Amino acid sequence: MLKLHHHPLCPFSRKVRVALRERGLAAELIEATPWEDEGFQKLNDAGEVPVLEDDGLVVADSNAIVEYLEEGYPGQTLFGKSLEQRNETRRLVAWFDVKFRREVTDLLWGEKLMRRLKRVGGPNSEALRWGTANLREHLGYVEYLYEGRRWLSGDDMTMADIAAASHLSVLDYLDVVPWKGFDGARDWYAKMKSRPAFRPLLADRLTGIKPPLHYDDPDF
Amino acid sequence: MLKLHHHPLCPFSRKVRVALRERGLAAELIEATPWEDEGFQKLNDAGEVPVLEDDGLVVADSNAIVEYLEEGYPGQTLFGKSLEQRNETRRLVAWFDVKFRREVTDLLWGEKLMRRLKRVGGPNSEALRWGTANLREHLGYVEYLYEGRRWLSGDDMTMADIAAASHLSVLDYLDVVPWKGFDGARDWYAKMKSRPAFRPLLADRLTGIKPPLHYDDPDF
Repeated sequence: MLKLHHHPLCPFSRKVRVALRERGLAAELIEATPWEDEGFQKLNDAGEVPVLEDDGLVVADSNAIVEYLEEGYPGQTLFGKSLEQRNETRRLVAWFDVKFRREVTDLLWGEKLMRRLKRVGGPNSEALRWGTANLREHLGYVEYLYEGRRWLSGDDMTMADIAAASHLSVLDYLDVVPWKGFDGARDWYAKMKSRPAFRPLLADRLTGIKPPLHYDDPDF
Repeated sequence: MLKLHHHPLCPFSRKVRVALRERGLAAELIEATPWEDEGFQKLNDAGEVPVLEDDGLVVADSNAIVEYLEEGYPGQTLFGKSLEQRNETRRLVAWFDVKFRREVTDLLWGEKLMRRLKRVGGPNSEALRWGTANLREHLGYVEYLYEGRRWLSGDDMTMADIAAASHLSVLDYLDVVPWKGFDGARDWYAKMKSRPAFRPLLADRLTGIKPPLHYDDPDF
């Protein structure tokens, strides 16, 4: 039995949850708050979620987990079939996990949510301003990709879509995504929200922090 | 013929250069300074090196490139043979490319070198102080890994070693690595410096910025 240590509002945990479900792999979900739990480092030296346990084998880091699922559970793939699409998928996973994370997620989700959960004070307003401006640029990029494709990295739904939607979903929980004016990006995200593998994420709630009404509505 | 667009002092470019050589894949090296060249975005939307061209196929992002070499040029592997070692390799690549990058490389290399190359002013002294303190923690972690292993992720030299050594090599060029007091880490890095695939990196020089004398000496 697979076990996934995760946090419900962590974009990297969400990425793996969706990947597992899309692959049809059942996993026991174990909620973790590693920043409050020093013992978590025994599982992952980095002290971070997500961590997958597979029959005693411990896999840490969201990309290591997803590549492990490709190699350890071959068959269906979440990267695309051709080398060309696999490259494009990995380029975009890095885009969202590195560039988008640095330019948007860290500045908005990091400042508005994680600082609150870690009780280290309120958000930095300059960070919020930059994050908001950068998010508009990135939504424009999602639209640009989606204009000529069925999904972000090509004809198939891949890890590129899952990574992008995972980051956007935690931002949308905080109601900071300016969907108005980005119809293409909204259409693509609505398609992701409708997927059975994505629905469970949208049912999660943090105590004391409510998402906006449109958050779990696929027709938003 | 493979072509690699790279910058000689970019750790992610170095990672791919070493990977190519370790795999015995010849590539034409094309030096790029994407921050001075808006046209570079035509090759990679992120406007960053490294970018690999393989007979018309463009692969951007260092991890996408390295995974592409595994899939497109099968045979020898730089991740390890068992699933367990492959997981450990990918965990550590993420450790160095994400955690070490954020806690050390961005603060020291980013402030001391990139700000100078981009002509955006001198380094922030608080960033340097944090980067220096964090680097000591990370050298301790390298020692901890290396104590019970022949290489960082196990018995074989893998992308974990290549990623770690690539980051450390650009920091060592700037003479900010406190090797004294970290004998284990120095022994491991000396072993990396002796590899034929690593030697060409140590011959690169930037105009006006000299590395310390020990920089290219494997017996330092």
